[in-house]
Amino acid sequence: MRLRPLALLAALTVARIAAAQTPGARARAAAETYRDAHEGTILREFSDLLALPNVARDSADIRRNADFLLAMLGKRGFTNTRLLTVPGGPPAVYGELPSPGATRTLVLYAHYDGQPLDPKQWTSPPWQPVLRDREPKDGGKVIALPNDGQHADPQARLYARSAGDDKASIMAMLAAVDAMRAAGTAPSVNLKVFFEGEEEAGSAHLRQILETYRSQLTGDGWLFCDGPVHQSGRQQVVFGQRGVTEAELTVYGPTRALHSGHYGNWAPNPGVMLANLIASMRDDDGRIKIAGYYDDVRPITPAERRAIAALPAYDDTLRRALGLGRTEANGAPLAERLMLPALNLRGIRVGGVRETGSNTIATEAYASFDLRLVPNQTPERVQRLFEAHLARQGWFVTHDSATTAVRLAHPKVVRVQWGSGYPASRAPMDGPFGRAVIAALRDGAAEPPLVIPTTGGSGPAYLFEQVLKVPMISLPIANFDDNQHAADENLKLKNLWDGIETYAALLAGMGKTWGAAVTP
Amino acid sequence: MRLRPLALLAALTVARIAAAQTPGARARAAAETYRDAHEGTILREFSDLLALPNVARDSADIRRNADFLLAMLGKRGFTNTRLLTVPGGPPAVYGELPSPGATRTLVLYAHYDGQPLDPKQWTSPPWQPVLRDREPKDGGKVIALPNDGQHADPQARLYARSAGDDKASIMAMLAAVDAMRAAGTAPSVNLKVFFEGEEEAGSAHLRQILETYRSQLTGDGWLFCDGPVHQSGRQQVVFGQRGVTEAELTVYGPTRALHSGHYGNWAPNPGVMLANLIASMRDDDGRIKIAGYYDDVRPITPAERRAIAALPAYDDTLRRALGLGRTEANGAPLAERLMLPALNLRGIRVGGVRETGSNTIATEAYASFDLRLVPNQTPERVQRLFEAHLARQGWFVTHDSATTAVRLAHPKVVRVQWGSGYPASRAPMDGPFGRAVIAALRDGAAEPPLVIPTTGGSGPAYLFEQVLKVPMISLPIANFDDNQHAADENLKLKNLWDGIETYAALLAGMGKTWGAAVTP
Repeated sequence: MRLRPLALLAALTVARIAAAQTPGARARAAAETYRDAHEGTILREFSDLLALPNVARDSADIRRNADFLLAMLGKRGFTNTRLLTVPGGPPAVYGELPSPGATRTLVLYAHYDGQPLDPKQWTSPPWQPVLRDREPKDGGKVIALPNDGQHADPQARLYARSAGDDKASIMAMLAAVDAMRAAGTAPSVNLKVFFEGEEEAGSAHLRQILETYRSQLTGDGWLFCDGPVHQSGRQQVVFGQRGVTEAELTVYGPTRALHSGHYGNWAPNPGVMLANLIASMRDDDGRIKIAGYYDDVRPITPAERRAIAALPAYDDTLRRALGLGRTEANGAPLAERLMLPALNLRGIRVGGVRETGSNTIATEAYASFDLRLVPNQTPERVQRLFEAHLARQGWFVTHDSATTAVRLAHPKVVRVQWGSGYPASRAPMDGPFGRAVIAALRDGAAEPPLVIPTTGGSGPAYLFEQVLKVPMISLPIANFDDNQHAADENLKLKNLWDGIETYAALLAGMGKTWGAAVTP
Repeated sequence: MRLRPLALLAALTVARIAAAQTPGARARAAAETYRDAHEGTILREFSDLLALPNVARDSADIRRNADFLLAMLGKRGFTNTRLLTVPGGPPAVYGELPSPGATRTLVLYAHYDGQPLDPKQWTSPPWQPVLRDREPKDGGKVIALPNDGQHADPQARLYARSAGDDKASIMAMLAAVDAMRAAGTAPSVNLKVFFEGEEEAGSAHLRQILETYRSQLTGDGWLFCDGPVHQSGRQQVVFGQRGVTEAELTVYGPTRALHSGHYGNWAPNPGVMLANLIASMRDDDGRIKIAGYYDDVRPITPAERRAIAALPAYDDTLRRALGLGRTEANGAPLAERLMLPALNLRGIRVGGVRETGSNTIATEAYASFDLRLVPNQTPERVQRLFEAHLARQGWFVTHDSATTAVRLAHPKVVRVQWGSGYPASRAPMDGPFGRAVIAALRDGAAEPPLVIPTTGGSGPAYLFEQVLKVPMISLPIANFDDNQHAADENLKLKNLWDGIETYAALLAGMGKTWGAAVTP
């Protein structure tokens, strides 16, 4: 780590900010200068936030996160800070930061809960954040956090659940507020923040929260601050989100595990039945074979097609980096594939393999799916089509654990358990809000942001549009290879630093171009 | 438990044995009487044997088993007891018990190693034998072992790895020797025993042991003492064994787990590819779709077909007891299905399900298979056909862990790791040895034994026929629902008691009908 005298830092700050010609450039310089002096402060506060376990179903954990976030807002002078609660769900964390003279209100959405995990798969415990000089697969070693005035390698990564998805966004936006205040710059918009606590669990209570607190949540536009930047490392602005629903399947075999020699060829093998079931639904190229599945899919518009064509060619680099000899896309670009629904197999568990394998026919086989939806699909209709397909394949579908009577009465029995779900959203690619976001992000940036019709990820943007009647656009900052949702989730420091600059540029610049006109 | 005065027992013994009219009936009465007085002694010795961990790959464990067995033989006056060893393999345990005046030598085969296991799936630790009044699924409770003169419920079960497969056979045959000695009856045959230590690991060293110790292992016929009795509970004599080989498959996806939203429909999903691979090989009815797979299958002979037709109708009872709404057999009897090869899926592991599920595309998918062979299939040819099928489905087959270069060079890469394997054997259903076994088992039995063309299980009988040029017939004693190879393996006490009678009847009666003629 390098160490610079604080006096020199202060002199550099003044010089950089003075040299900048536009609000965006000045804000980015202010962010960089602030971070230059405060890496230790930022990373310690971020680590404290990441050290709080945050699986949505563990309500005491979730509450500790929410209280910590309230304190983070309070420390920065946010007003009206509070938990927005409804019965039975995790609270949303809310706060306001009005700016004198601003006429527009920007609301920043992020979520503080994380995906469930299996700690055994992690290199280090998921809620004990550590900085590593490189990835564990490349022999990365744990290194110390820098102190203020010191600088960690920006390629180093902080490892913890939610480091990338999505506590990174919270940390970056609040550090941007700190940076602007340190530089004496007032945001050009009134700011509100809204941090959800069950995004990874399907946002079951979000609608009720938005409806209950509608009058407080007014604003002219929402930014959905979640997800990774483009694989090339460039900032992107994303106009759509996919919907999602999840299914857990149980296929039943004999009521006790059987010797495969004495019963093979006679007792049905639930693992084989499950494999045949999966094969009936999806081919090796991602094509969903469920009848009617694509009927509701909204065609790609010419504007969306142009935006996809304008994206930098990166797919082949990505494919090679992932060790893939092919994609499922037959040469179509990744961005175009995300405009289609996806049926993803999350996992299968049946019997044993390798060290735990034995010559038996298992009693039950489990599979887990996530179904990514696009406009105008709905979870309800997709679920109906899915179950109708199973029935056509000869399966008796039950939603409860199958009794022996049910198992005896039907040749093939499958239990389907649906998780919660929601539809997709995809905003039109122009309009005052979108134009203001893009203009503010271009201003002072080394490269213009990429403009993407939809992310492949799912988010509850549809709800904000439905309930609050405001446009919502996504602005992600995490590195694309952050192992989001998986073991060894991480955030590359460079992405945190870039994120702070991005938010500073938005806060400083958006008010100038957004105007006072009624937003769409 | 009931308690009878010992004097009364002794009186009963004399009366029962005296009343019996034939050698078999007298031997059975002697066995029952002996057991009646010594349940505690028998079950304690058996428990001590079962308490020794016995997975074939753990050589120190295996050695402890072998030493214990040598001591069991020594205690009973077996001569020439020793370990038959070859480099790198578990020892076989050997001993002889000559009988004055006998002209024929019977060799009893059993194995003392057990299937690998996952202790987490067991109700109680697999190598801490416990007696339960009924099965754990029926609320069974642990009960004390009886003392001599007491009687446990014969429906109670002893739980431990190898309780059924195959230490039960060893315990029953040695208790039969004790019973005959207590009754003052000499066996009608010279007896040899041969206990293998790696049957569950594929018997890789058995051929070498048989070849090395060929001169010691002479005999007129071998009984393969392993496996369960008929599902109806009746004793059976089995003329064939299936061969087996095992395959572990690894299908490769991206080199790191990916967010299913951002990469679904683009990055190949190894779980789906594996499901499609399995579906290409086997249908829901057990039909193997690998080209040429049935070409080597020896047709069922008229004698075999008659034997199958003579078996009691039990399949439907069995199907219902197993909670199955159908079988894979389309109405064909189980015994007929065992005459065909079987491709059994042992298990699948990919990603996570239920609590461990997350919205990711996994990096690798694993499947484990056992392939049951029938005459005249060979493991080598079956393995070739299996791999040729994969290649025809577009898979690049490797036997090593796939490097990134290999993964990039091929659209679909699968690693296949073959376990050891051996062919099937099926003896003709008549001949002096077979007739002598059946006659001895009929003599004094309440019901005649069932005569079965082949077991579904696999065993190395082909080797004995190839190397020693002697006929081998199987004589199982365990209960059919002993969870053989699975968790909570158990032996029903009634099967142990019946087994002791069976061996006593054989030892007492076989010499009478076997005759001095040259065996086939």
